[in-house]
Amino acid sequence: MPETAKEFDILILGGGSAGYSAALRAVQLGFTVGLVEKGNLGGTCLHTGCIPTKAYLHAAEVAEESQESEKFGINVKFESIDMAKVRDYKDGIVAGKFKGLTGLLKMKKVTVIEGEGKLTGKDTITVDGTEYKGKHIILATGSVSKTFGLEIKDRVLTSTEALQMDYLPKSAIVLGGGVIGSEFASMWNSMGVEVTIIEGLPHLVPNEDPSIIKVVEREFKKRKIKFSTGKLFKTVEQNDSGVKVTLEDGKEFEAEICLVAVGRGPNTEGFGYEDQGITLDRGFVIPNERLHTGVGNIYAIGDIVPGVQLAHRGYQQGRFVVEEIAGLKPQVVEDINIPKVTFCNPEIASVGYSQPKAEEKFGKDNVEVAEYNLAGNGKSSILGTGGLVKVVREKDGPIVGVHAVGKRMGEQIGEAQMWVVWEAFPEDVATFIHAHPTQNESLGEAAMALAGAPLHG
Amino acid sequence: MPETAKEFDILILGGGSAGYSAALRAVQLGFTVGLVEKGNLGGTCLHTGCIPTKAYLHAAEVAEESQESEKFGINVKFESIDMAKVRDYKDGIVAGKFKGLTGLLKMKKVTVIEGEGKLTGKDTITVDGTEYKGKHIILATGSVSKTFGLEIKDRVLTSTEALQMDYLPKSAIVLGGGVIGSEFASMWNSMGVEVTIIEGLPHLVPNEDPSIIKVVEREFKKRKIKFSTGKLFKTVEQNDSGVKVTLEDGKEFEAEICLVAVGRGPNTEGFGYEDQGITLDRGFVIPNERLHTGVGNIYAIGDIVPGVQLAHRGYQQGRFVVEEIAGLKPQVVEDINIPKVTFCNPEIASVGYSQPKAEEKFGKDNVEVAEYNLAGNGKSSILGTGGLVKVVREKDGPIVGVHAVGKRMGEQIGEAQMWVVWEAFPEDVATFIHAHPTQNESLGEAAMALAGAPLHG
Repeated sequence: MPETAKEFDILILGGGSAGYSAALRAVQLGFTVGLVEKGNLGGTCLHTGCIPTKAYLHAAEVAEESQESEKFGINVKFESIDMAKVRDYKDGIVAGKFKGLTGLLKMKKVTVIEGEGKLTGKDTITVDGTEYKGKHIILATGSVSKTFGLEIKDRVLTSTEALQMDYLPKSAIVLGGGVIGSEFASMWNSMGVEVTIIEGLPHLVPNEDPSIIKVVEREFKKRKIKFSTGKLFKTVEQNDSGVKVTLEDGKEFEAEICLVAVGRGPNTEGFGYEDQGITLDRGFVIPNERLHTGVGNIYAIGDIVPGVQLAHRGYQQGRFVVEEIAGLKPQVVEDINIPKVTFCNPEIASVGYSQPKAEEKFGKDNVEVAEYNLAGNGKSSILGTGGLVKVVREKDGPIVGVHAVGKRMGEQIGEAQMWVVWEAFPEDVATFIHAHPTQNESLGEAAMALAGAPLHG
Repeated sequence: MPETAKEFDILILGGGSAGYSAALRAVQLGFTVGLVEKGNLGGTCLHTGCIPTKAYLHAAEVAEESQESEKFGINVKFESIDMAKVRDYKDGIVAGKFKGLTGLLKMKKVTVIEGEGKLTGKDTITVDGTEYKGKHIILATGSVSKTFGLEIKDRVLTSTEALQMDYLPKSAIVLGGGVIGSEFASMWNSMGVEVTIIEGLPHLVPNEDPSIIKVVEREFKKRKIKFSTGKLFKTVEQNDSGVKVTLEDGKEFEAEICLVAVGRGPNTEGFGYEDQGITLDRGFVIPNERLHTGVGNIYAIGDIVPGVQLAHRGYQQGRFVVEEIAGLKPQVVEDINIPKVTFCNPEIASVGYSQPKAEEKFGKDNVEVAEYNLAGNGKSSILGTGGLVKVVREKDGPIVGVHAVGKRMGEQIGEAQMWVVWEAFPEDVATFIHAHPTQNESLGEAAMALAGAPLHG
């Protein structure tokens, strides 16, 4: 380790999305920074989360499109999927980003401290026996896959193991129909795997607006992704030939492998947090609104803080805390205003309140919604995708939620969040021109409809 | 013709994007409406413009991706392109939208008058000998391909003829490197045609920001699209075996066909406009800022009005004029704030001022820019695309231009235009969270960089 500094303005435990964005913002603001990471810089998102899964999903898209290309007049013979090569492609993307990130942190003079760190004092993190001091400490140790006590081994995998597979199973059971489960189910299905999702809640992607859920479930059915909802699983058993999942009502499902995608929990064990007086609640660190833990100058960011577990929330919290330390008084971003994308096919984008949540907050009579069906959108027809855009407003008030579903619709989240964060009225948006023929037009159409003046209607 | 009404609140000549959107807005506001169309409702955009070219470009994308699928681990054997089937797919999309539009206009009780209309009085349009009256008249006769006097025949085509081809030429010369020329060149190249673009101006897509032009020219070169810029063509000759284009400097190019894509001119001849006292300037109708022609209650909208010739500008002007007639005092949208997308590969999105235009308007020292290279954007790497986002601001002032280039980047135009139209400061945008891993993040990164606080930098 060439770096010999042991004292820093800001010392960060964990080099994932939250931790490294804090480090970069800190050097921009003139702080000296130490960043402790035991594994690979970039964390879950880069190595076993967002980036590798999206690479797989793109390969899945290519596989699916090549099998549908004839309808566009392109004669292609689909031959096979070489899963080892898909993995190599994924590994190449990850390696490139990893190299970029490592180089950037070095160039910006962030001191990266390799090894397992432990909080051993209010201003101290000990790494392999060496004490490092920080005037401010930021905890960013991220999350791990939940397993509900299941042994992860052989045919029972979490997403981390699934991303290392060099073959396609013939069939797979996916435990959990949330973001991770839906993405893996979609990916495998596109690659020819028989997929069954087991979701304990009444619906797939249960956090989404009901209109979105309806489309996702319809499309998944069309694509022959099987799913069982509303029943919890009781046991997962495996033997040499396969896995068997039994639900609480006794119903059984069998497949070659089982992916456990029941969510991610905070990674806070064994870091000495409690020894320093930091209270944990079901494993989460509970900081105040400005992310201070209440102990010394210690802050917590990213997936160890309750709320949506998303890389971009981590980025934001990393920057927020550093600006807070610098006295810049950054603005708190409410979780509801954080944009969310699920990259299954059809893709889901959402920001702000769903209709039920808006009705809960503002009252049933104080919420208005409009839906625009992508069947009317030229570019979506060209791409061969259905779906919809739903806009939720406070009655006579601003837009408080935007929800979209359809192939490639994830990219519409940018404009959608502008509306919600800026509290735009549909009437304001309706005066804007949306470029033709884009999928982006569908947002304009939905806003115009909500303003009572649809363009095509 | 089942409709017998001869008098309307609003009588519209031309059922393209501008005309039909005026008609739909007019019925929303309670007006009676007559819409005269000699060809097919939907006009150029739907039948020989935006929609069919984008369908072809999607087929081209599918063709290209199937040939690159191996790098994603998907083994596919590309066999052939069946251009008749590509055309059928395109025709299917157009037919679907046409049916939808026709049904919508009928349902909304717009009286569609089929036939060639002519302005024969300040409140009169005569169609096949029958006089129709409008308290207000809206002229929306659209545009036609310019040909610079070239005879369109056999191997020398405009986009209209090219969209009817049921075969792929081995080689093509594309006269004009603007939007239409670049799109066709890109499409044919993806389908294996040897393409040469001849552009009289010094660069391809000459209306774009120089940074964008650089990327497009570099990518076109990489894709082996040849181009000659800065020299005008002198002659186009054809015989049984091919076409020969000779430049002013004597240089010759040969190919199987030649696409004339030198722009579109106003379609204003033979409609009696001048007889009613409407002044034409190089064929364009020149209304005032509020689109009134200065004659009677006659307005002009869409491609016959000088400015960017885009369907969505037509939509907007159609709605604008009707709201003006209704006394709603709609806001004028400056041409500079109209979003523009060119659907070649790489796609181009732009809104607001390019750097040179901003420097011209605000002074060289009063403009700041930031560029974000898509090499740093995870989703773009996954898609295998390069490109960039460039944001232009007035010094210490709002964002006045956003320019992007890269595969699928056209869809980013939605958020981009929000910034420009709302006059957002990069510092405002920098506090927003962009969803990871999307291409949309690249906009956030560019804004953050311009605000002096890059997320990854």
